This record gives sequence, structure tokens and C-alpha cells, in this order.
Amino acid sequence: MYSQELLKPDGRKLTLYSRCPIVADTLAPSPGSEPIQATPHLRWHPLRGEWVAYASHRQGRTFLPPPEYNPLAPTTDPKFPTELPQGNYDIAVFDNRFPSMTLQVETAPIEIVETLPANGACEVVVFTQDPQASLGSLDLSHLELLLQVWGDRTRALSQHSQIQYVLPFENKGIEVGVTLNHPHGQIYAYPFVPPVPAKMLECQRSYYQTHQRGLLADLIQREIKDDRRILYQDEFAIAFVPVCARYPYEVWIATIQSVATFSDLTSEQRSGLAKALKTVTLKFDGLWNRPFPYLMAWFQAPTDGEPHPESHLHAEFYPPYRTSDRLKYLAGTELAAGMFANDALPEDKAKELQAVLVTLEE
Amino acid sequence: MYSQELLKPDGRKLTLYSRCPIVADTLAPSPGSEPIQATPHLRWHPLRGEWVAYASHRQGRTFLPPPEYNPLAPTTDPKFPTELPQGNYDIAVFDNRFPSMTLQVETAPIEIVETLPANGACEVVVFTQDPQASLGSLDLSHLELLLQVWGDRTRALSQHSQIQYVLPFENKGIEVGVTLNHPHGQIYAYPFVPPVPAKMLECQRSYYQTHQRGLLADLIQREIKDDRRILYQDEFAIAFVPVCARYPYEVWIATIQSVATFSDLTSEQRSGLAKALKTVTLKFDGLWNRPFPYLMAWFQAPTDGEPHPESHLHAEFYPPYRTSDRLKYLAGTELAAGMFANDALPEDKAKELQAVLVTLEE
Repeated sequence: MYSQELLKPDGRKLTLYSRCPIVADTLAPSPGSEPIQATPHLRWHPLRGEWVAYASHRQGRTFLPPPEYNPLAPTTDPKFPTELPQGNYDIAVFDNRFPSMTLQVETAPIEIVETLPANGACEVVVFTQDPQASLGSLDLSHLELLLQVWGDRTRALSQHSQIQYVLPFENKGIEVGVTLNHPHGQIYAYPFVPPVPAKMLECQRSYYQTHQRGLLADLIQREIKDDRRILYQDEFAIAFVPVCARYPYEVWIATIQSVATFSDLTSEQRSGLAKALKTVTLKFDGLWNRPFPYLMAWFQAPTDGEPHPESHLHAEFYPPYRTSDRLKYLAGTELAAGMFANDALPEDKAKELQAVLVTLEE
Repeated sequence: MYSQELLKPDGRKLTLYSRCPIVADTLAPSPGSEPIQATPHLRWHPLRGEWVAYASHRQGRTFLPPPEYNPLAPTTDPKFPTELPQGNYDIAVFDNRFPSMTLQVETAPIEIVETLPANGACEVVVFTQDPQASLGSLDLSHLELLLQVWGDRTRALSQHSQIQYVLPFENKGIEVGVTLNHPHGQIYAYPFVPPVPAKMLECQRSYYQTHQRGLLADLIQREIKDDRRILYQDEFAIAFVPVCARYPYEVWIATIQSVATFSDLTSEQRSGLAKALKTVTLKFDGLWNRPFPYLMAWFQAPTDGEPHPESHLHAEFYPPYRTSDRLKYLAGTELAAGMFANDALPEDKAKELQAVLVTLEE
């Protein structure tokens, strides 16, 4: 992995990553040159016992870009700078212009509940220079680089003592609200372990203390034995519709052995995860022969400097469709009660995805 | 409150409620006459420590209703029976034809995680016979009846020893996936306290133990003192955008004093809540002069037979819009991490709703 750090004129950081030595414009562009003035803050929600982030950005864009303007493509016309320079890099990561959290903010307003400056970080990860690509169309070595990049960002972000948890994710498709089609994801780095990963860690910790084995590693062994919901499997990695899927087409990708963070992956495990990731995204796109929207999130151990033998790096995909033409809306029982009701059996949805044949290049 | 219980030909229960003595067809209709064959089950999600419900219904409708057919209106053509009979009732409650949970099912499949029959209940609450009405257009006495009905359903459902928690809610608008426009809500009765109310109760219990006062009652006093986010207030009830709103137009309605369940309401409190409910829904519909979609959920104490002095009956509205033409999509940080990022300040959204003037009839 090769990388190069640059600074944008508005003060934001940009890091380029590549499989080969990087030759790139050392001038990092930005759609705007004014310094980023985000002052997000957190308010404590006493009834749910969780933090909520508030960021009210005044989006004063003055320039009118041409219709083909793509802020995530390399800059071609200096009159309309994008987020990225020209160069031979594969993946680029930069600070979000409109962050929900930032390490720069120092104050928070006084409210009737506890408040804090939202001292986290929000990064954008551009997966490739090709605006037409998707995770499924990228080379396996490119996907392996992406797994390394997520590891490098986790390492870099965890240098800041405030950061407690790093979550890489991808929102894909207009159905989940994405307006930019260029293949990209995001990284949120939180100054606390957020509620969902916190609950997962609690379940994993409790299981580990009782069994001295990983909860997810044991579940994976049972999934392998059950053998009805597996989409990809090799010696090091696996992809499956979990027995307890909350979304009809929910899929998990994981190493077979417990691995706490991206940085702990062996190259064989990374290679297995890349194959699993490519297989799953190709199957999704092949299911109805059209781009398949989803939220993909990668859960790992907190960056608190403690060992986390209970934690198991894995991705969860939450696709919004329940059939080719019907969305699964989250409504009363999901959003208000927190109990998901799934009108599809995971076994049946796995069968549909198993039937989509895909080939990985060698 | 007057009520009458009927049985549908397919075995489902129907209860009619009215402000005056009921004269209605004693034959309860049903769109289908075959007995309901739902066999939903629960699977344990070990990584999140929660139950997920699975119900795969084979929806074998054979009859082709006319285009104006409304299953929630009283039956007019016996060839096309709806869910409701003719009569002078105001509100009707019946068992959902396609339930995610039912008290009738006795078995669950064996899977690699713990499973249980989904022994809960799913009811439909038709708010009025008028298909054009909305909560805001109903008389205050009609809304008071609705609050009584929610109480009566809580009481009736809690007779079943399996039921631990009763949640009335309304999904409103095509934006949240609702296909039937006729004003109606639902009631889910769970065989456990679901994750979100469980977390709320935990926060409330811990606060109550420390302060011997209610968490929400104290927050309401602080909201009253702060005075920037209040939409309605009288001696008994209040409506406000909470300081910790997770959705831009989130609104809470509550009694000012702690009340554990619907059954514990005094008539003054019920009257206050009805006025708050009418005010909020009229303000919502008046904001952009069009029907305003939302999820409304009413949280109360569990039906476990224990006293719950920590619990405080209240409604939370989660509207899906963040501006008049932009939806707030729940994405990576909300669905995967569980931290909500709100790009609007509750104070600003409260101001917008405060500016919508509404009149309640006397």
C-alpha cells in the first residue's frame, strides 16, 4: 500500500492510496476555499441514554458547476475544482465538508440536557476514480487495498485520544438517500462507542467470558454446519444471510476466525474478505440485473487501546428492498419498539442470492 | 365509553367503541372467510441481544374488489365485505389479518439460535368511519375516546399472561410505506419489553431511584422553563419539540405529571392530551398545507403487573421530512451505529411549528 497526505486550501486533509507508487498533483483541490466552519455539538438524550449530534450548516455555495460536474472525480477544469486531484491513485480519503462531528470544534451551547462539542471525525472514502464502477466491478487487489485503507484510517483516527470508535460504511442508491453516484463510502469516528456497537460488544463480551470463545465465530460454525444460508466461503472468510436477519436481504461478511480490527487481518484473511465482498455485491447487482441499494457497515473493536478478544470484525449489509419492487419501510415496531418484523425467511432469501452465479477473476 | 365485541367469520375479534350506545350489525364481516393461518415465530439475534419476528404469509386473495374498495370502511356491498360492519360506532379495533405476532401459534421451527412462537398480538385501530378524516380533524371528544380505547386495549391485551408490553402507534403517509389512506393505527402487544421501551425504562428507573422523581416529568419542567420549543401547554398536558430531537420535526406529547399507563389517566389529563394531540397534528398538516406524514408511538409502562412509578406515558412523533421537499434518510450512523445526526436545531424546527396557528373547538 502506498499513500500520500495532502492539505486542501480550506484546511481539510486528503490522503491518496494506491497499489503502486503515487504520482499525483500535490495541489489538493476543494470545491470551496473558505475554511470549514462546522461547529457540531452533541446533546444527551436522557430517555434513550444516548448522544444525538446536531450540525446546522449554512451551505453558501456560490459557484454553479456544469451538469456533468462530479465532486468525487479528479479535477479536470481548474475553474470547477472537485475534491480530488489528477494522479494514479486508486482510493482517496478526505474530511467531509459538512461534518456531523469534527475534532476542530471546542465549544457546545448550554442546553437543558448535557452537551459536548461533537469531537469526532467524518471522512469520505472514494473507492475508485471510475464513476461507473461499484464494489463488485473492482479488482480483488483493489478491494484488498480498500480493506487496508479502512485499517489505515482506523489507525490514523485512533491517534486522537477523543476517538473511541471507527465505523466505515457505504450508503448506496437513491433509495437510501444517496445523491452522488460515484462509488464512495464514509467513515464516522465517534468520541464514544455508539449504542449499536456498544450492545454488540456487551453481547460478545458476555459470551466470551462464559465460553472463552467468540460469539460470532461460534455462530459462523453453526451457519457452516446448517449450510442453508451461505453465499461465499473459503478457508479464511465467509458471507451469509444470518439466521437472525432483520432485513429480508441482510448479509454478513466476516473472517472465519475472530479478528478484532482491520489492522489485525492477515493477508490471507484480507484476500478472503475481498472475495466475499466482491461475491456479495455482484450477487446483489445480479439479482434483478440492476444496481442494488444497501447500507453496508463494518463493525470492529473500539479504539480504546484495550485488547478486545471478544470482538469480531465483520460487515453487515442492510438492503432496503423486500422484493424487486417493494421497499421494506421501517415503521412502528422497528423504529419505536426496536423489534424488527421480517416477512421473509432468511433461508428463502439466501436461496435467491445463492442462485445468482458470479465469477471472480483469478 | 360504550363498546361491543364481535367475532369475524375467520375467527378474528372485532371491538366497536363509541361515545353513545352502539347500534350496529352484529354480523362482523371479513374480506376473507378462511381461518387465519399465521404461524409467526421469533428468533434470537445473539449479536444484538434482541428478538426478531418472522412471518411469511401466503396472501391468497381470490376476490377482486372494485377500485373504490376500502377495507377499513363499513361494508356497503355484501359481495365485497370489508373489515367493518354498518353501525354508529366511532372507533373499531380488530385483529390484523397478517400478524407479525399472534397468541394462537404454539410452535416455532428449530434453528441454530433460540426460537419461540411469536406469542404477541397485532391489532388494527380504525380511528373513524370517515375515510377523509385525520387525527387533527376529529372532535376533541373523539380523540378522548381514542385515548380510552388505547387504555381498554392495553387492559384487554394484558389479560394474556404472555403479553409484557403494549405499544399503540400510527404510521401515516405513503412516505412511511402506508398504503391505506383511511385513518388508522395499530397496536403491537409483545411477549417481552422490546429494546427501545426497555432502554427508556432503564433510564427512567435509574433516575427515579436517584431523585425520587420522574425523569420525563423533570425534563418537562426544564422544557417549560426554557420555553423555546413548546407547541401546546395547559395545566395537565404538553406538546414540545424535545431538546434532544433525533428527527428534525420530532414532537413529544405527555401529561405534565407522571402517569404510568393509559388506564391511570384522569379525565382532565385525557382532555389535555386530546387537545395536545389535535394541536400537534393540525400544526403538522398546516406547516406545508398538505397531509404531514409521521410515525406516532405511545410509550407506557409494561403490563407485568408491577408498579412503575418511573414510567411516564407519552407519545413521540417521528416525521420523515427534514424540509418540505427532502426526506431524512436513516443511513450509516443512525441504522448501523445508532447515533442520530440531525442537521436541524430543535429550537428552529419548534419555531416553524409554533408559527402555524391552529384553533381548537370549544
